[in-house]
Amino acid sequence: MLDFSCDYRNGACQPVLDALIKTNGETTATYGFDIYSKRAEEKIKAACKAPDAEVFLIAGGTQTNMTVISSCLLSYEGVLSAETGHINCHESGAVEHAGYKVLALPHHEGKICAKELMAYMCGFENNPSRDHMVFPAMVYISFPTEYGTIYSKSELLEIRKVCDEYNLKLFLDGARLGYGLCCDECDIDLPFLAQICDVFYIGGTKVGALCGEAVVFPKKAPAHFITMIKQRGAMLAKSRVLGVQFDALFSDGVYFKIAKNGADRAKQLKKTFADKGYEFFINSPTNQQFIILDNKKLEELQTKVGFEVWEPYGEDKTVVRFATSWSTTEEDIKELQKLI
Amino acid sequence: MLDFSCDYRNGACQPVLDALIKTNGETTATYGFDIYSKRAEEKIKAACKAPDAEVFLIAGGTQTNMTVISSCLLSYEGVLSAETGHINCHESGAVEHAGYKVLALPHHEGKICAKELMAYMCGFENNPSRDHMVFPAMVYISFPTEYGTIYSKSELLEIRKVCDEYNLKLFLDGARLGYGLCCDECDIDLPFLAQICDVFYIGGTKVGALCGEAVVFPKKAPAHFITMIKQRGAMLAKSRVLGVQFDALFSDGVYFKIAKNGADRAKQLKKTFADKGYEFFINSPTNQQFIILDNKKLEELQTKVGFEVWEPYGEDKTVVRFATSWSTTEEDIKELQKLI
Amino acid sequence: MLDFSCDYRNGACQPVLDALIKTNGETTATYGFDIYSKRAEEKIKAACKAPDAEVFLIAGGTQTNMTVISSCLLSYEGVLSAETGHINCHESGAVEHAGYKVLALPHHEGKICAKELMAYMCGFENNPSRDHMVFPAMVYISFPTEYGTIYSKSELLEIRKVCDEYNLKLFLDGARLGYGLCCDECDIDLPFLAQICDVFYIGGTKVGALCGEAVVFPKKAPAHFITMIKQRGAMLAKSRVLGVQFDALFSDGVYFKIAKNGADRAKQLKKTFADKGYEFFINSPTNQQFIILDNKKLEELQTKVGFEVWEPYGEDKTVVRFATSWSTTEEDIKELQKLI
Amino acid sequence: MLDFSCDYRNGACQPVLDALIKTNGETTATYGFDIYSKRAEEKIKAACKAPDAEVFLIAGGTQTNMTVISSCLLSYEGVLSAETGHINCHESGAVEHAGYKVLALPHHEGKICAKELMAYMCGFENNPSRDHMVFPAMVYISFPTEYGTIYSKSELLEIRKVCDEYNLKLFLDGARLGYGLCCDECDIDLPFLAQICDVFYIGGTKVGALCGEAVVFPKKAPAHFITMIKQRGAMLAKSRVLGVQFDALFSDGVYFKIAKNGADRAKQLKKTFADKGYEFFINSPTNQQFIILDNKKLEELQTKVGFEVWEPYGEDKTVVRFATSWSTTEEDIKELQKLI
Repeated sequence: MLDFSCDYRNGACQPVLDALIKTNGETTATYGFDIYSKRAEEKIKAACKAPDAEVFLIAGGTQTNMTVISSCLLSYEGVLSAETGHINCHESGAVEHAGYKVLALPHHEGKICAKELMAYMCGFENNPSRDHMVFPAMVYISFPTEYGTIYSKSELLEIRKVCDEYNLKLFLDGARLGYGLCCDECDIDLPFLAQICDVFYIGGTKVGALCGEAVVFPKKAPAHFITMIKQRGAMLAKSRVLGVQFDALFSDGVYFKIAKNGADRAKQLKKTFADKGYEFFINSPTNQQFIILDNKKLEELQTKVGFEVWEPYGEDKTVVRFATSWSTTEEDIKELQKLI
Repeated sequence: MLDFSCDYRNGACQPVLDALIKTNGETTATYGFDIYSKRAEEKIKAACKAPDAEVFLIAGGTQTNMTVISSCLLSYEGVLSAETGHINCHESGAVEHAGYKVLALPHHEGKICAKELMAYMCGFENNPSRDHMVFPAMVYISFPTEYGTIYSKSELLEIRKVCDEYNLKLFLDGARLGYGLCCDECDIDLPFLAQICDVFYIGGTKVGALCGEAVVFPKKAPAHFITMIKQRGAMLAKSRVLGVQFDALFSDGVYFKIAKNGADRAKQLKKTFADKGYEFFINSPTNQQFIILDNKKLEELQTKVGFEVWEPYGEDKTVVRFATSWSTTEEDIKELQKLI
Repeated sequence: MLDFSCDYRNGACQPVLDALIKTNGETTATYGFDIYSKRAEEKIKAACKAPDAEVFLIAGGTQTNMTVISSCLLSYEGVLSAETGHINCHESGAVEHAGYKVLALPHHEGKICAKELMAYMCGFENNPSRDHMVFPAMVYISFPTEYGTIYSKSELLEIRKVCDEYNLKLFLDGARLGYGLCCDECDIDLPFLAQICDVFYIGGTKVGALCGEAVVFPKKAPAHFITMIKQRGAMLAKSRVLGVQFDALFSDGVYFKIAKNGADRAKQLKKTFADKGYEFFINSPTNQQFIILDNKKLEELQTKVGFEVWEPYGEDKTVVRFATSWSTTEEDIKELQKLI
Repeated sequence: MLDFSCDYRNGACQPVLDALIKTNGETTATYGFDIYSKRAEEKIKAACKAPDAEVFLIAGGTQTNMTVISSCLLSYEGVLSAETGHINCHESGAVEHAGYKVLALPHHEGKICAKELMAYMCGFENNPSRDHMVFPAMVYISFPTEYGTIYSKSELLEIRKVCDEYNLKLFLDGARLGYGLCCDECDIDLPFLAQICDVFYIGGTKVGALCGEAVVFPKKAPAHFITMIKQRGAMLAKSRVLGVQFDALFSDGVYFKIAKNGADRAKQLKKTFADKGYEFFINSPTNQQFIILDNKKLEELQTKVGFEVWEPYGEDKTVVRFATSWSTTEEDIKELQKLI
């Protein structure tokens, strides 16, 4: 059955698979010191135009969020996030389990706004009880957000400004980064992220790899970050598994090519639904599209095509998510058109 | 200067001080096995009409909240609390530091409502992603709340009903319990709390003791709770310090007598402000009174009497808190009357 | 250069690689619900003759140890381990970072002995201060150990007996399990492990997979273990990556065939060194061989072949480790013979 | 019954009790900002001749150890301690619960030796796997030790030298500091400790207070240490309880006077046992004396006088502990003489 339920339902994109096959017989170093991890690191630094960056490859997203956040914060500090942020909702409390409070901010279609961030910080600074509170020290944003939306360049600059004013680290969760960077509405790129973020990651699991996320500290990683990765169980002994994949993704522009496919298919999918008069829950420019279905229609569609039920919408409607990915084809969209 | 800034600005009430003096030269056992801790335990069980209860004395409130919550929850579980709950706002993230997420519910003058609790649980149970979420397993309420309000018997029974339906533990923070139980509006008592709570504590620090909170598990404490107290640094070697104080507080009804004084003085204080036309932020029946002051008036009053600045109220007003306690006298109120 | 430095320096064994290639284009479920993870689970249960077992696939070893230990213990409990145990030495304190004390026992060529375990438990039970101590609740053993040695059936039964007597869980770290089960000296098998262990894992990273360890709870996993995996960052979204690999490893006896190769090559390697008069640090029957080299010889050999420097041995000698693996060939051994 | 079982079986010394009585009716600030805490702080800084020191008052010893250690270490760091150290044995794993590994060193009558510390650090620095290990970052010593012994000035200077060489923080647990500083064999004082330690604490619970330990950072405390105290539940709201006590203890040399009494009584007690031919387990110069008793004698003595059973000594003997304290009188010793 045609399936748009998520963007990690397939294997690896062909260049990644080819690289795994080609290198399989080679003997390499381990724990991040293999030649492919080193190559991937250099290619990512070049793509970010951040020659001083430190890059680390980690197997999964929650693991990356938990490792980065808990390694960058002191024990009395917390991380600000949209209330809809993945770390606040769908990571089984991994950040709190590591000892850190997620300080929730209101969301606007998944995004935080610099003004409310500023107001929070201002309130904290002026609170006479602040020694009895959690010190906000990091801002977590996702790009695209959990609702498929993206921040504009100016929105990000405003957030960065507040971060500078209040000495907050900016951490961008790029689990679906490619789909954000390659959509029509996007006015930023990797080098820009490397300029404004203290740390961000480039998602592989959802963009063409079997697994893997590339953490980028554009300036400098925390001291002994490798040991902190190890301590949190996030270090793959056979690190080449991640190195080979990211080396392939960042050769010949593969990462952006396949991400563009995901974004383009999403545009077609969106148009397909719009043309048929479907109502959208959110105006997402990226590979996740949120559509409002009558519950009857929902039941009917579920027999024909895979998608994800998101949340109830009033009494008799439901928000559902259709996700495209690097592997979605134009044929898939055409087939979908017939079914809806 | 006359001071209503908080309810822990004085030493101990006379019976507690007398007991400390009287027992000072005695030799006792330690680590909770001293005769005074045992006596206090028995008297508290009697006052709760809970013969099977297990009682533990701990030095402070945040320590008690953190120890109880982290000892009762499994690692994947979290605690529901009003967003204004002390554990969510003013304990420097102690619960998260211990590894547990505080799941915030809307507050209504500091209280949660059973209906919203039910809705939260219902949403969680029906969420297809719930394995990726924090499992709500405990409800934390404070009595009185951080805004001085109290739950009625029927409100508590409704909350208990939701707890029963969803297998949630109910934990009541009684840092100011006496002032709640002894105010005019209160329609519950200790035995009732022992019936509906899985665990609660009777605050001593704010009600006549030098320090100390009595944790009551009406049915059964978690196995090896003593070791968990020790592990969290919450065990006083010279446990008699707490034992002697709670033994005195629960002899001859001292705890309730002195708490009643705090509640009665609050009533007078409230009337005093009301008579002079002051505006109240919240209609609190207990020892914390929240008053709205013009910022000019605020500055003027600050030179005459001690109180706590709570939060801004619009552009040119401020919410302030006046707290009475076991040590507040009628003379204090009369003097206040002249100053405001 | 010929390389015996470790057993995770190559890619995947051919059947695993073939399976990854073959399934790459398929669409599957995620988070452990994909058909390959389910198949792997069933095959592993069959291989263990443990129809009620629960099996979980996790990406790496430290992650597995930390997740299993922290999910099985209550906060006041600790895990007993040989002082040389991987969790005690080479996981950057991951177990302690998760909040649990590793209680070190003396080691005998990497193994603990039932008698000393019994003595420890006896001492604990009789210690009047035990409420102020960490409660031993789990025994961690590795098979083979960090020194390549293995426990005999009778040794394991004795350890199990102590576990039964003192209500200890038995956890066996099988990062190199195949090499232990397939060596000549071994008198146990997977079904035996499933009978005596409360939980163990079958290592893939070091035995033919790109990554992955299969955790087996022969009777029953802790409730909501999936959420605890997620919370510790140890859940791969694209779980098929592990499922496909373990499905292949447990089809047609692949796991045991390739492990047998590693064990057989180790036997040849051992004989090769012995024939040339080299001294052994430990009489290891598995794929890790520990040899004592003069420091001059060490320097000479390092230019010719890859191996790991283990530890100094007196003033002018050094212990080194040569590891074979599923990928070591007879030709490798012959070539080594010429070099040493 | 005469009781030498421990040094925290009595109330407070008279000057402390008097101060509590005298100040009871006063109104003070809270959370460490009360005038008595401030005065105590100044007096302790003067006694330490450390004008830049930061002093914090905390209720109990395990709490202090856990708070100091977890506030001073980064997540990948650990604390070195004698295997017999209190943090390693009798705090229910509080340090590990806070996420930090205790790295055990051999003990010599409770003390570590600079040479072995150096060897450990040297081994760590040279270990090629050190990124996969816990980084030693702090040395924990107790003065007197858990066996009543004390370090000499030269021993401490040697330890400090290793700390300097390897960038280790030195933390001294002074739960019984007074008894160590006031015994005949001691050749150091408070100002010396302030010179060589990065942090230490002056015990009150066992030296004349109802409760309380004074943490001294001679140079500088970690940033936001107050919030870290709060977060660990270690902050008393009514901080005057500790402030008044330490203010009294550090007025008119009270602390040293009463500690000297404990040390002098121990000397008499030791002589009493020695004169009667009893065998000593350890030659302790401080208030804890460890004596070896035939098990028959043990049973007989237990009916006459309180003491603590320490550990078995061979087949039919037992080590027991007799502790004197600030409250032990010459009459107590005379009475003991008649009983043994």
